[in-house]
Amino acid sequence: MRTARLNIDTGHNRSLTDLTPQIRSFARQLGDGLINVSVPHATAGLVLMELGSGSEEDLWARLDQLLPRDIRYVHSHGSPGHGGDHVLPAFICPTLTLPVFGGEVSLGTWQSIVLVDPNLDNPQREVLLAFLSDRG
Amino acid sequence: MRTARLNIDTGHNRSLTDLTPQIRSFARQLGDGLINVSVPHATAGLVLMELGSGSEEDLWARLDQLLPRDIRYVHSHGSPGHGGDHVLPAFICPTLTLPVFGGEVSLGTWQSIVLVDPNLDNPQREVLLAFLSDRG
Amino acid sequence: MRTARLNIDTGHNRSLTDLTPQIRSFARQLGDGLINVSVPHATAGLVLMELGSGSEEDLWARLDQLLPRDIRYVHSHGSPGHGGDHVLPAFICPTLTLPVFGGEVSLGTWQSIVLVDPNLDNPQREVLLAFLSDRG
Repeated sequence: MRTARLNIDTGHNRSLTDLTPQIRSFARQLGDGLINVSVPHATAGLVLMELGSGSEEDLWARLDQLLPRDIRYVHSHGSPGHGGDHVLPAFICPTLTLPVFGGEVSLGTWQSIVLVDPNLDNPQREVLLAFLSDRG
Repeated sequence: MRTARLNIDTGHNRSLTDLTPQIRSFARQLGDGLINVSVPHATAGLVLMELGSGSEEDLWARLDQLLPRDIRYVHSHGSPGHGGDHVLPAFICPTLTLPVFGGEVSLGTWQSIVLVDPNLDNPQREVLLAFLSDRG
Repeated sequence: MRTARLNIDTGHNRSLTDLTPQIRSFARQLGDGLINVSVPHATAGLVLMELGSGSEEDLWARLDQLLPRDIRYVHSHGSPGHGGDHVLPAFICPTLTLPVFGGEVSLGTWQSIVLVDPNLDNPQREVLLAFLSDRG
């Protein structure tokens, strides 16, 4: 199994980080197999979505409805709304798996692999990559 | 790795398409392993759910609450509500992986593998299957 | 492929069950690979989240907004709100895959693998584990 760890600086604002270039680079020359992308954090998630056409703002608006950024949460440390950050991974799973064909991660034209970090309090994130090859 | 591409005609209405028979057929005789199902589109997703008992309508009703079909979206081309279609994959991931035992995709009695396509504007969809075997 | 079946007693109240110890125990000594965790039920899901700090209540509160526990559902057998239980797996997927390094399931410090069972009517649940090794 081939593995890598990405260190991502997501800053102190909520952020969507395009991981696609780094993941494509990792997979290149690895042949055929499955690549798993996982975020070992309790307040972040991963999505496959289009970037650059405004859907970023639309996603935050929908998340603000689902997980209001206020003090209603039982889990209540950190910035207002941080309790909702802890619920986010239930709806936006922090792990996903994609096929790789001939070293190319299989994504549609408009799909990017995106780290969703609503968290104002944790500016450094890790992302784990694990590639299981056809040949072991 | 064994792979296949399904071409699905989802039409010009929003649709839930049961992919289970085609995926089961693909996996038959492939032994033990993991099957990945991925949709390379930015406005569709995959769910494991029961079909045929009314949950289809219930899912659309809940999606209409989460992603209202109006013109509020920054990403605003296409039919009204299409901006929400671009947010859908954040909540309904377009890739999932299941175990296969002796050529049988492991699903519960009431589970089907369902392509969720809220999109009125893209009637043709692809679904990618990739099976990684125990034996490579 | 190494496999196991967990039998979980979730009782007649809605429940979040920490599967982490049993999954860690299964993976121990299995080396490097990918582990798939799947729930073969139509009214349950899996999440990676922090337990023990109040996020359990916060998750149920958010689910009660997304999937109100009343009689609005077309799929309407069972307890009030059970129709929503059938929609839950669309938003909280019942399968996920994680990397295993040297027999250790790769999880962050605050992440647990949690079975979400909103269902009052089905007290017994199965969880399937499948480990695909680097060596086949």
